[in-house]
Amino acid sequence: MIHFKEIGKIMGALLVLISILMLPGIIFSIHFEEDPWPILSSAVITMIIGATLFFSFSKQDQNIRKREGYLIVALSWVFMAGFGMLPYVLSHEINGFSDALFETMSGLTTTGASILTDIEAMPKGLLFWRSMTQWIGGLGIIVLTVAIFPLLGIGGIELFVAESPGPTSDKVHPRISETAKRLWYVYVGLTVMATLLYWAGGMTFFDAINHALTTLATGGFSTKNASMAYYDSAFIQYVAIFFMFLAGTNFTVIYFGLMGKFKRVFKSDEFKTYGFALLAISIILYYPIFANGGVSHELAFRKSLFQVVSIVTTTGFVTDDYTQYSQGVTFICFMLLFLGGCAGSTAGGIKFVRHLTFIKNSWLEFKRLVHPRAIVPLMINGDRVTGRIITHIMNFLLIYLLTFVLGALVLSLMGYDLATSLGSVATSLANVGPGIGKVGPVDNFAFFSPSAKIFLSVIMLLGRLELFTLLILFTPFFWRAN
Amino acid sequence: MIHFKEIGKIMGALLVLISILMLPGIIFSIHFEEDPWPILSSAVITMIIGATLFFSFSKQDQNIRKREGYLIVALSWVFMAGFGMLPYVLSHEINGFSDALFETMSGLTTTGASILTDIEAMPKGLLFWRSMTQWIGGLGIIVLTVAIFPLLGIGGIELFVAESPGPTSDKVHPRISETAKRLWYVYVGLTVMATLLYWAGGMTFFDAINHALTTLATGGFSTKNASMAYYDSAFIQYVAIFFMFLAGTNFTVIYFGLMGKFKRVFKSDEFKTYGFALLAISIILYYPIFANGGVSHELAFRKSLFQVVSIVTTTGFVTDDYTQYSQGVTFICFMLLFLGGCAGSTAGGIKFVRHLTFIKNSWLEFKRLVHPRAIVPLMINGDRVTGRIITHIMNFLLIYLLTFVLGALVLSLMGYDLATSLGSVATSLANVGPGIGKVGPVDNFAFFSPSAKIFLSVIMLLGRLELFTLLILFTPFFWRAN
Repeated sequence: MIHFKEIGKIMGALLVLISILMLPGIIFSIHFEEDPWPILSSAVITMIIGATLFFSFSKQDQNIRKREGYLIVALSWVFMAGFGMLPYVLSHEINGFSDALFETMSGLTTTGASILTDIEAMPKGLLFWRSMTQWIGGLGIIVLTVAIFPLLGIGGIELFVAESPGPTSDKVHPRISETAKRLWYVYVGLTVMATLLYWAGGMTFFDAINHALTTLATGGFSTKNASMAYYDSAFIQYVAIFFMFLAGTNFTVIYFGLMGKFKRVFKSDEFKTYGFALLAISIILYYPIFANGGVSHELAFRKSLFQVVSIVTTTGFVTDDYTQYSQGVTFICFMLLFLGGCAGSTAGGIKFVRHLTFIKNSWLEFKRLVHPRAIVPLMINGDRVTGRIITHIMNFLLIYLLTFVLGALVLSLMGYDLATSLGSVATSLANVGPGIGKVGPVDNFAFFSPSAKIFLSVIMLLGRLELFTLLILFTPFFWRAN
Repeated sequence: MIHFKEIGKIMGALLVLISILMLPGIIFSIHFEEDPWPILSSAVITMIIGATLFFSFSKQDQNIRKREGYLIVALSWVFMAGFGMLPYVLSHEINGFSDALFETMSGLTTTGASILTDIEAMPKGLLFWRSMTQWIGGLGIIVLTVAIFPLLGIGGIELFVAESPGPTSDKVHPRISETAKRLWYVYVGLTVMATLLYWAGGMTFFDAINHALTTLATGGFSTKNASMAYYDSAFIQYVAIFFMFLAGTNFTVIYFGLMGKFKRVFKSDEFKTYGFALLAISIILYYPIFANGGVSHELAFRKSLFQVVSIVTTTGFVTDDYTQYSQGVTFICFMLLFLGGCAGSTAGGIKFVRHLTFIKNSWLEFKRLVHPRAIVPLMINGDRVTGRIITHIMNFLLIYLLTFVLGALVLSLMGYDLATSLGSVATSLANVGPGIGKVGPVDNFAFFSPSAKIFLSVIMLLGRLELFTLLILFTPFFWRAN
């Protein structure tokens, strides 16, 4: 039996929270002398429906179990998308269900793909709400993956997220509410720091706070048509690189770093691989950018580093059109869409811990072939990974790739060319933003048909919830009584 | 310690065998009044070197162990390629190392991609040798996968190949030499039947025997520039479809079928999935071909069935340009490159048993998420598949896809466009022949640079030897003393 009353109550609370987070947009609307009514009425509608849901269901005193957990996660994003699109619709700034859904889902999933062709023409209040959807999505995913999923035993990589298994004192904090509170401090604190640094670097306060919200969420929505390329300040771009890097790091690792527990930071194989990979790929891609001419060594490296960090952390800010150099550079940037940041960060995509498991296990498979009777354990973060988790992670990778290919097939059946089909689905599934083909870094998603936009919105949600969490609702195992 | 003397002796015997198989080409050379010397001198050179190797090493009475097995498999293809290109080189019909290597490797790996732009202008004796290289490769792979690999415990799917584990009476025959002999009968018998039916259908005897050799090998080399499209006979095309289907079936299953043991045939989940998938995909692709106009229902279905069977069995014969219909049809045909036939057949590619393992396990992973403490076994062919094999097979799939992507990256770095890079590597790795982009069904591989041709030859060999068997030679585990 699934406890729908508990779920209804939680959805109500979530909507009240969303309505409160709509309010800052109104302040910017008033400040910039825009019509505040669309956002205000959205907030009021969301608040009323949320409060009604919340108070309709009395507290049941039931513990949320795993099965309710899956439903709550999926429904949370659906409810947030449904109400999150209200400001766009009520202001008539985005017309049509598919456009409004796409822009909202792209925000909440921290993807950052946009159907807006002239961002700077939008009212500032709406732009702020647009950035806020990403910040909400980013916060939601950290709380879920670091605090709630491990508690419920959801997902195959839960053991890597909050810390490796062992004494509970190793975790951020044994109690979920305390863990969530500390992560919230880190997230808010970093967002404030990024805002101040962007501001100090020459952005207006409005642009600074918007970019800070979407940087920490690895979202990538910008208030400028040219994205980060609008700012030719090296300071601003390095600030962005630094905070994108942090946002793609496991927040537990950041927390330990802030506490000065560096031993625990460097115990994370995923973090070390992540840092090393970003640096190595940036050095490789620096060369073709420099050889293309017209830029200094520093600028070529900065362009490379910015693009690599932006794609790998699944942020999607752009300072350069990476498809302009050669087939090879474009191909590499396309491949970067399949990396993803660290588990337990705001980044989407596959995540380094899964790649690490796959690569390490591949190596060990050769050893197992030569020594078929030997027990050859796989170690990550100093701990042994069970066969069951290895199987689960490799199965995840295959389902991820299958979803990508079938998704691209759907787009190609709709008539889109190969590069556009592959690029749009890969970037949506990994929650990045820019892709290749007609959805390259200087393009946008406006030209897609309504059905393609709705389809890509579903792909974004599938990617954000790491496939299993959403797909499990469509299996009989989930609905059958325990 | 690796017993290099035994290996040398076996390589010698292999070369003697190859030289004998060169001889029929000489008969055709004489019959068609061509210069027989290039093939004759190739056979003599190969024979002398082979015999020298064979008699240089006295019989050591050592059992071939697993590690020697891997080396023998890899070296066999390298030796066969090295001596198999002699007729092309000595006749000066194919000039340049990369072209000769490509055509020979494409033959021996049963790929069927060609650098020849005018096949019909080639001497008949050479064309026969070209078809023979595929037949040798096809025979080699069946003997290896059905008789030798399971004996040595090589490869992760050995349990599915010769039959599922259980009483040894279940296998074709417990003794390797007996097993190999019976498979040889089946292979030769089917080749003779195909020759007679092609001949009866209107092919010349020369064309009939060539096409029979390359059909049973799932190779796809043709003696006509237009491939099978040259023959507009429905009879010939259905004969080709029938024998391609058989060649892509596990030869143990064929053997049981010929013995009238149909219960064992239908116990094979792989065979049932293979048959069902071919039919289902053909029905799906029939529609766009029919809707394109100008063809009857029968012809549209035959075109669809022929192409689907040809690609999925990794044969690569062509009766139709599947890239002419739409983005969607091209994309589907591209995806078919990743299916492959059955394990223990002459087909290359991923193989259905691996897909079956992945799909079944994916479904069970959801059950495992809901019931984390339950033991949820995976059954194939009525037997339980161990966790170790599941892990190995999923790891294979991921390494296969990684090889594909990295291979395509190399080609794109060489400057080839996205579709051509993806298509040429996918079709080489799966040993099919035609791909997409500039290597579509009516194109050929002549335009590639020498380095690209050599690279694609390596990719073909990697695919044919199912990655692990070749890659393991480059790991320290292999070379370290036991």
